[in-house]
Amino acid sequence: MNYDQIFDQAIDRLHSEGRYRVFIDILRNKGAYPNARCFAGHNGPKPITVWCSNDYLAMGQHPKVIEAMEEALHDVGAGSGGTRNIGGNTHYHIELESELADLHGKEGALLFTSGYVSNDATLSTLAKLLPGCVIFSDELNHASMIAGIRNAGCPKKIFRHNDLEHLEELLAETDPALPKLIAFESVYSMDADVAPIHEICDLAEKYNALTYIDEVHAVGMYGPRGGGITDRDKAAHRIDIIEGTLGKAFGVMGGYIAADQKIIDCIRSYAPGFIFTTSLSPVLVAGVLASVKHLKSSSVEREAQQKSAAMMKAKFREAGLPVMNSTTHIVPLMVGDPVKAKKISDILLAEYGAYVQPINFPTVPRGKERLRFTPGPAHTEEMMDHLTRALVEIWERLEMRKAA
Amino acid sequence: MNYDQIFDQAIDRLHSEGRYRVFIDILRNKGAYPNARCFAGHNGPKPITVWCSNDYLAMGQHPKVIEAMEEALHDVGAGSGGTRNIGGNTHYHIELESELADLHGKEGALLFTSGYVSNDATLSTLAKLLPGCVIFSDELNHASMIAGIRNAGCPKKIFRHNDLEHLEELLAETDPALPKLIAFESVYSMDADVAPIHEICDLAEKYNALTYIDEVHAVGMYGPRGGGITDRDKAAHRIDIIEGTLGKAFGVMGGYIAADQKIIDCIRSYAPGFIFTTSLSPVLVAGVLASVKHLKSSSVEREAQQKSAAMMKAKFREAGLPVMNSTTHIVPLMVGDPVKAKKISDILLAEYGAYVQPINFPTVPRGKERLRFTPGPAHTEEMMDHLTRALVEIWERLEMRKAA
Repeated sequence: MNYDQIFDQAIDRLHSEGRYRVFIDILRNKGAYPNARCFAGHNGPKPITVWCSNDYLAMGQHPKVIEAMEEALHDVGAGSGGTRNIGGNTHYHIELESELADLHGKEGALLFTSGYVSNDATLSTLAKLLPGCVIFSDELNHASMIAGIRNAGCPKKIFRHNDLEHLEELLAETDPALPKLIAFESVYSMDADVAPIHEICDLAEKYNALTYIDEVHAVGMYGPRGGGITDRDKAAHRIDIIEGTLGKAFGVMGGYIAADQKIIDCIRSYAPGFIFTTSLSPVLVAGVLASVKHLKSSSVEREAQQKSAAMMKAKFREAGLPVMNSTTHIVPLMVGDPVKAKKISDILLAEYGAYVQPINFPTVPRGKERLRFTPGPAHTEEMMDHLTRALVEIWERLEMRKAA
Repeated sequence: MNYDQIFDQAIDRLHSEGRYRVFIDILRNKGAYPNARCFAGHNGPKPITVWCSNDYLAMGQHPKVIEAMEEALHDVGAGSGGTRNIGGNTHYHIELESELADLHGKEGALLFTSGYVSNDATLSTLAKLLPGCVIFSDELNHASMIAGIRNAGCPKKIFRHNDLEHLEELLAETDPALPKLIAFESVYSMDADVAPIHEICDLAEKYNALTYIDEVHAVGMYGPRGGGITDRDKAAHRIDIIEGTLGKAFGVMGGYIAADQKIIDCIRSYAPGFIFTTSLSPVLVAGVLASVKHLKSSSVEREAQQKSAAMMKAKFREAGLPVMNSTTHIVPLMVGDPVKAKKISDILLAEYGAYVQPINFPTVPRGKERLRFTPGPAHTEEMMDHLTRALVEIWERLEMRKAA
């Protein structure tokens, strides 16, 4: 048994497929986002523009958020010092959970250390609490939902992406006496499309299934109070469990679910991924609290983001770049090859100071490699023109076919 | 199918076993720890003394840590804005990984959002990379290690706690051609004892097994540089993967592993729990960096903690309280009943302003419920005398047998 050899082979596989990942080393400039500094391989920090951040609304540098974090830091210190049950339950946590419950019109909410953990812990625990449960899962669900479903150890049925007929077919063929859970996302981050929430809820009612929606790419950004697509589409009351993140539009870090109090109480009491982990730092929680409160009453950021996204899609389309069909704030450009996607990204960074990460397997299927842009309120038209010209030049240089 | 009824029954089970958890609502006072404020049920904040925090060395309020976090907050903002691969790899992350690698004398290190995630993600991914792998796991391993081992889906063999003979028996009966991984902890937090690390490494060498050690209750606190028990016992070079937390003695939040570069590279490239999650906030990372650097060169905190723990054990023993045998900084008092453990804790908080959480199932086995004290550098002898008198009074009031 030669362990080194096995590890070497695992790494070699990545290199040979052209999908070995190199993390680029950056620091964002607070107050000047999307401007940042890039280290390593560039002789000291080099100024760049970030085009792929999930701090979608630049709330990570909002004065209210920074101020709240600074205040908490000086009031209670750096960490929580324990799990939620053992010394790590601060007043900030309780306030934020109440704020998030209100955001989604639910009785309760529960914080996790990340969106990944909230999906993994909740889905796996829910299914274990419901004897015989069958999970119905959209084929494009995020890795964290897949982890939760797999770790549940229960039967699962995968329905074709946003395909209501297929979902109904699978529901109809399943024993009516068994507990059922339909798990899906509102905004699919890599394809930039949206689920037919009401229609899925209709099916859930018809077949008596619970519903679980991942709104991580929507909370803060959609609906009059930033409650996500379920807020925009007035569907929150039809969903049993809404899952969200505090690390994207809210600009900080962490994850949560919102649901009826008895579901919250069950997950709180039975999920190892919630119970056995140090709770979120109160400094983060204080920042999120300020962020959620702000986005509940301000729509300025949401509107500016939508305007930015529409402008970028128009500019890309006009320039003949292969922009994918997006009904959201996310602007993906299809490349279809891991080596080329990385090459474009490398040239953009080295020659144009524009940072967009190539998206490759396992984040998207093989052959569907792409660049994924997330323009926000702070990206100007001038920046977009510069980026569009750069992409057109690179597309020509690499002799890639443009959109028809 | 009545979902509400199933959830109600799940909660009822907890109530009927006397282990329904109520999180106490507190805020610590930075600069005055272990003093804190307790909310809810007490007519406004009431001053308390915290006896059960895992911020073991009070680094969560250390001026260097606070200062570093404040600086990062103003330099780069609240969150990282992305996964490590997509925009969330900051210069702070790279610096901290290098610092942690050095702490353990390893080639590399890898950050996770929590210690729980580092165990779950690393163990499950390692086993999947090694075809046919068998994991040998100490029966008292933490829930997060158990999660990782279960999620690996590979055969596992549980050895009796710290029992070398049993471990060897299990190793010897396993096909020599199969990959093997021995997973254990250095300090067991609930029993307060320590693993025979060198002897386990001897067995690992004899049977060609990889070794994985969880040092979350030891990093920062043992060894001349705070590298944990493997640092104290000069065993780090014999362990393949050392796992630690940034949320206990280092005072902030997060987890990590340290290992050879090729192992780090494999986990970095293959673990969904690492890949698909927003990276730690740079504000937290900056705080940890200051904390790790400080504890590498200062032993003042470690020595004060050991002194505190020794003093508390002596006082408890002298008073005839059933203090469990501890060779570490953790001081557990055996109660053996979930209702009584909660009752003692409730009286301590309400009447004596002393906060110690009762530890019940599933954190410890049923019938082994206990109180777990973590005295640190900031707990004074006067505080301990006050606590000891309170415990003696409660023990008498509840007519509980004291230690022989």
